[in-house]
Amino acid sequence: MADVTASGLLADIADVGRDRTRGGYSRHVFDTAELDLREWFAGEARRRGLDLEQDRNGNLWAWWGGPGPDAVVTGSHLDSVPGGGAFDGPLGVVSALSAVDIMRERGVTPAKPLAVVVFGEEEGGRFGVPCLGSRLSTGSLPAEKALRLRDPDGVTFADAARRSGLDPERIGADPELVGRIGRFVELHVEQGRGLVDLGGPVAVGSTVIAHGRWRLTFAGQGNHAGATPMDDRRDPMLPAAETVAAVRRIAASAPATRATVGRLAPNPGGTNVIASTVDVWLDARGPDVPSVVRDVEAAARAAAEAEGCTVELREESWSDEVVFDPALRDELSAELGDVPALPTGAGHDAAVLSAHVPAAMLYVRNPTGVSHAPEEFAEASDVDAGAEALATVLARLSR
Amino acid sequence: MADVTASGLLADIADVGRDRTRGGYSRHVFDTAELDLREWFAGEARRRGLDLEQDRNGNLWAWWGGPGPDAVVTGSHLDSVPGGGAFDGPLGVVSALSAVDIMRERGVTPAKPLAVVVFGEEEGGRFGVPCLGSRLSTGSLPAEKALRLRDPDGVTFADAARRSGLDPERIGADPELVGRIGRFVELHVEQGRGLVDLGGPVAVGSTVIAHGRWRLTFAGQGNHAGATPMDDRRDPMLPAAETVAAVRRIAASAPATRATVGRLAPNPGGTNVIASTVDVWLDARGPDVPSVVRDVEAAARAAAEAEGCTVELREESWSDEVVFDPALRDELSAELGDVPALPTGAGHDAAVLSAHVPAAMLYVRNPTGVSHAPEEFAEASDVDAGAEALATVLARLSR
Repeated sequence: MADVTASGLLADIADVGRDRTRGGYSRHVFDTAELDLREWFAGEARRRGLDLEQDRNGNLWAWWGGPGPDAVVTGSHLDSVPGGGAFDGPLGVVSALSAVDIMRERGVTPAKPLAVVVFGEEEGGRFGVPCLGSRLSTGSLPAEKALRLRDPDGVTFADAARRSGLDPERIGADPELVGRIGRFVELHVEQGRGLVDLGGPVAVGSTVIAHGRWRLTFAGQGNHAGATPMDDRRDPMLPAAETVAAVRRIAASAPATRATVGRLAPNPGGTNVIASTVDVWLDARGPDVPSVVRDVEAAARAAAEAEGCTVELREESWSDEVVFDPALRDELSAELGDVPALPTGAGHDAAVLSAHVPAAMLYVRNPTGVSHAPEEFAEASDVDAGAEALATVLARLSR
Repeated sequence: MADVTASGLLADIADVGRDRTRGGYSRHVFDTAELDLREWFAGEARRRGLDLEQDRNGNLWAWWGGPGPDAVVTGSHLDSVPGGGAFDGPLGVVSALSAVDIMRERGVTPAKPLAVVVFGEEEGGRFGVPCLGSRLSTGSLPAEKALRLRDPDGVTFADAARRSGLDPERIGADPELVGRIGRFVELHVEQGRGLVDLGGPVAVGSTVIAHGRWRLTFAGQGNHAGATPMDDRRDPMLPAAETVAAVRRIAASAPATRATVGRLAPNPGGTNVIASTVDVWLDARGPDVPSVVRDVEAAARAAAEAEGCTVELREESWSDEVVFDPALRDELSAELGDVPALPTGAGHDAAVLSAHVPAAMLYVRNPTGVSHAPEEFAEASDVDAGAEALATVLARLSR
């Protein structure tokens, strides 16, 4: 195994789930590409003699030594955003597999159980709620809410899970499983330029910004684009567009806030059809999000009323700010030679788990600073340095 | 046959192609629903002893009497916009079939060949170019351009046609077929409130407004919605939204202009992803469209530059204003008891054909005035009055 590096493992899956329409990768929970990657992961676990189990929520666990309490767990996810990069998710999984190899090369035998985990639907790219797998296992998302989520084709999470061999009746909080975890470490590509500016390949995580998702549904009167006079329209596309502009304006004037409309869907969406409804998804992050969302809602409502339309706002997910366990953070930083600690604006399974167990993150340098896009990148040498660093901290934690 | 009315025929196909997601009907050329309707049409032609042929462009012709020159042709289309109504298209087809029955009931034997035609892709709902079937047959759209058109899944028109049994090599202008048509009459649900205000069930068509479609593609930098600071973004959703507002502003200040953005698609379209590109489709109609489109393009360019983005504008289709043959229009109006003549803002196959043969339209009252939406409507008594009127004018024209 010793000749297989993390960058080599990443190259092995470089052809899975490429999106010819959008560019980059589209790998969504339980779709063909993600299922192929799960099978690939199962094969890699088998080659390393790790025992694979799928938990009741569809997360995969590969155990080195029997599952047990006080386990050291590492891993990430294999799904992507639509048209995403090659690193966000898989980097943490290949690094975890490679770290097992490196520890063995170094003659390390963990005294504690060690597991590599793959969480499902981290991006929320199919069912809308990010970190769906870890939220379900930890009980921070009720099963009955998750089962009713629908993908863009109208398929419920319950049906998708059933088709992938899960029992919808058993989906939900899994305290016994979560109770096994002593420490959790997730390695991830950095999603900004922090390490580029600092000049090193690896950092530890300090905080995750508070973040949430909302859906605004504007409703007007669908009609014929040619036969309907301009002054006889109630076109929901107008307030939707004004809301996109308002989101930028409001976010730009709130300190440390990030707010984005990256998804917008007119219904029915015909070129020669005035839309009857338009869905607008708002992603908002930062300490002032509650007031930002209130301001966006007020702007949306005013724009809708001016066009004779209505608007309804629903929260799809919410995550409070997370401060990773300071003792664990400092322990890992010191073990790696005092690498820096970086905050992030991106959510992670490690942040969900941190409410239940001491959790930490390692970031690997991304020279473009771009993420959730094909330009996301990490040099092979940095990828392999990340896996070495992960092996170092896992060896320490599993003593 | 005499007991089958036009409204009864419409009821027979009321379950085909319902769109459970969007509401209304989604029937697009060569999809399952449209193919089911073609089969239903073939059966109705057979029951009436009409000879069915499919032309090289996939339009269906049901002949009463052998195909020949100076034929009287009537018909419309079976496809819909996404989430469209039950009448736009099928009403003209069921009324044509019913008119054959009514003529026979009345003892009319046409001296000229008579055909009921179903044109393909009138709405452009799948491949983007409206009146694709009639444009191809008349040669007003070059075959090589049509064959390269792609649907939202990336399937070319050439491939879709091949899968439906057409020979892509033979697709294109069909002067012999068009040469057979002596007069063409299309019956259609009205797409406004003209007849509601005038108080009658049927009108004839006078003009069709000039209209076209353009696609604006905004390009910026896709990135992570949480990790990218607000002042470090080149988000194409912003200029796209500003363009939607500009379209309304520009159209509202140009007399007799109608301009609409009913379709807008961010790529990749993830909630937690700043889009890398956004496609915006502009439908614009009226005498001032060239200057309206220039103004929209200028506004789009200014908004794109302000965000560090680019924009590219492409024309997808264009149709000059059409004035239906005045002599034919007046002849039909008089035959029906001096029914009114109405202009329309909607495009039709009859308008495409009018550049080649004398063509006319009959409109049937729509109490909602709404079209391209589930609220589109016609009372059964008006539907049947329309079929009676169509039988009357066909009897006159085929003497």
